[in-house]
Amino acid sequence: MLKNDLLLKALRKEKVSRPPVWMMRQAGRYLPQYIELRKKYDFFTRVQTPELACEITLQPVDIIGVDAAIIFSDILVIPQAMGMTVLMEEGKGPLLPKVIASQNDIDQLNIDVEGNLQYMFNALSLTKREINNRVPLIGFAGAPFTLLCYMVEGKGSKGFEKAKAFCFTQSALAHSLLSKITAATIVYLKAQLKAGADVVQIFDSWSGMLSPDDFDQFAGKYLLQIAEAVAPHGPVILFPKGSASALESLSKNTAVSGIGIDWNMRPEKARLETQGRVTLQGNFDPIRLLMPIPELKKEVHKMIKAFGAQAYIANLGHGIVPHIPVDHAKAFVDAVKEYQE
Amino acid sequence: MLKNDLLLKALRKEKVSRPPVWMMRQAGRYLPQYIELRKKYDFFTRVQTPELACEITLQPVDIIGVDAAIIFSDILVIPQAMGMTVLMEEGKGPLLPKVIASQNDIDQLNIDVEGNLQYMFNALSLTKREINNRVPLIGFAGAPFTLLCYMVEGKGSKGFEKAKAFCFTQSALAHSLLSKITAATIVYLKAQLKAGADVVQIFDSWSGMLSPDDFDQFAGKYLLQIAEAVAPHGPVILFPKGSASALESLSKNTAVSGIGIDWNMRPEKARLETQGRVTLQGNFDPIRLLMPIPELKKEVHKMIKAFGAQAYIANLGHGIVPHIPVDHAKAFVDAVKEYQE
Repeated sequence: MLKNDLLLKALRKEKVSRPPVWMMRQAGRYLPQYIELRKKYDFFTRVQTPELACEITLQPVDIIGVDAAIIFSDILVIPQAMGMTVLMEEGKGPLLPKVIASQNDIDQLNIDVEGNLQYMFNALSLTKREINNRVPLIGFAGAPFTLLCYMVEGKGSKGFEKAKAFCFTQSALAHSLLSKITAATIVYLKAQLKAGADVVQIFDSWSGMLSPDDFDQFAGKYLLQIAEAVAPHGPVILFPKGSASALESLSKNTAVSGIGIDWNMRPEKARLETQGRVTLQGNFDPIRLLMPIPELKKEVHKMIKAFGAQAYIANLGHGIVPHIPVDHAKAFVDAVKEYQE
Repeated sequence: MLKNDLLLKALRKEKVSRPPVWMMRQAGRYLPQYIELRKKYDFFTRVQTPELACEITLQPVDIIGVDAAIIFSDILVIPQAMGMTVLMEEGKGPLLPKVIASQNDIDQLNIDVEGNLQYMFNALSLTKREINNRVPLIGFAGAPFTLLCYMVEGKGSKGFEKAKAFCFTQSALAHSLLSKITAATIVYLKAQLKAGADVVQIFDSWSGMLSPDDFDQFAGKYLLQIAEAVAPHGPVILFPKGSASALESLSKNTAVSGIGIDWNMRPEKARLETQGRVTLQGNFDPIRLLMPIPELKKEVHKMIKAFGAQAYIANLGHGIVPHIPVDHAKAFVDAVKEYQE
């Protein structure tokens, strides 16, 4: 039914003529069309109005020709749906004025998030319809550890020291919170797949701040619980940014279809550690998109060659940044489409 | 002559009864005695007054009993000595109001930094005298790539995107700047060893933002140039934070005595990649110092066991953070001293 199912094929490790390509944060601030909408509607209006979320989601499909759409939303909709106040000031990052500090705070969080997130499922259904089978639609959620970081710290941070201290000194509380986020996320991702998402990705943006043992305990365990619960309903991609050391063990879980990696690891090494067990996604340094286009394309081809074109999804190693020229973003996509083995 | 030469022995891979221990940023804001001095003297007064720098350097030797002193200073004294204005506002991080943007800016930088850094050599000589052979004295410098980050970006940053864009889009300029910083740093570190430092460490705090190939090109190359020039004068420790993938190749250079690693890598893996070629240093997560002392000590022993007690320097994986209780910092040191194979 899908006219372009490269992403799904790559996740199933089926033979493809070339790798699929999309970019994390592809619906975002480097696109003038997005900036126009941002002038008119505040952040949560854009996220919570299905027509706006749909329009923003489709922009990069139309403008730069990616092989997948990813629904426009934010990882902090889960803490919000669980009952926390989340403020998002343009250009300032998120603020959660009342943070989680006690078992009582955790007890008050709501797991049954479906009702509060109806706008998200409506946005997915609408987008699935509007996308008209051109490309697959990706749903997503923040990983439990990354959400804990914001819920305990209250805002973005270089080292999330308060959140980590919470994990290390009140680990029973931390696990109680992580379990609750995990339960809510399972509900959320299953409902996303039901509403129209073809694939889901779980973003563990801050897992790289944990040692390998701490990753297993506070991040990996919950990522895998989610993957196992969600995989029967659709393919799951994990993106534990900065946690190269977890690649081997995560790839051994058959509930995981794909793993995203950042640019800190050589593709060859990632293949060695995963031994063909999962599809790999990544790992172009977004700042490298600023290079002159001919060099940029050469680097993209080098990356694909290093990963190999099969069981691979071309992507950045992290979200695209605001000041990337649109033609450079498009050149990244074009370079993947032009790749020949 | 040194009463406690565990650090030097470990760097020479000589048999030790237990590993030496020190902590990055051990002379710093978690110590009330330091905070007292900070109230009276601004940052560069503390750095540039040998008596103050000496007093601060010796505080952790006296208070928590580390096996090495590291001279109190800052990595940004090099850009400053090269002619740039560096402002340091308490609690706000560094600010370099006029950044490097052109070849002309680079041409104006001074390589012959010895004269401008006389206060540092005086501080080292004085400290070496005052330390009275109790423990070795470590000198240090920022790595060229990390210094480029500040010199181009002008301040601290999450991703140093401007500095990385400078490297990727104006690489000839970047290499010209990196070469000049390298030359100044070689002069600086040799003079530190002459003035009284027993060992030097090079901090590449931001090298982890580079892909393995970019690391080799913009960071590793210059780290090794410095190590090769300085090693005949004293042992060199490299600390390329976040660059786990560089461990294997850096360890193959015989000019490198030690390599520090952060907590993102398992000690066993680090040993595997370095095959006994270098002494390893690290890699306790500083936030783990907040754990209750008995658990903290258990974790320290686990870490030493994982590295092995020989050719190993117990340390954190990054600088100690301000809110660590002094008795927890001391417990870290004590745990290493109590370690028995």
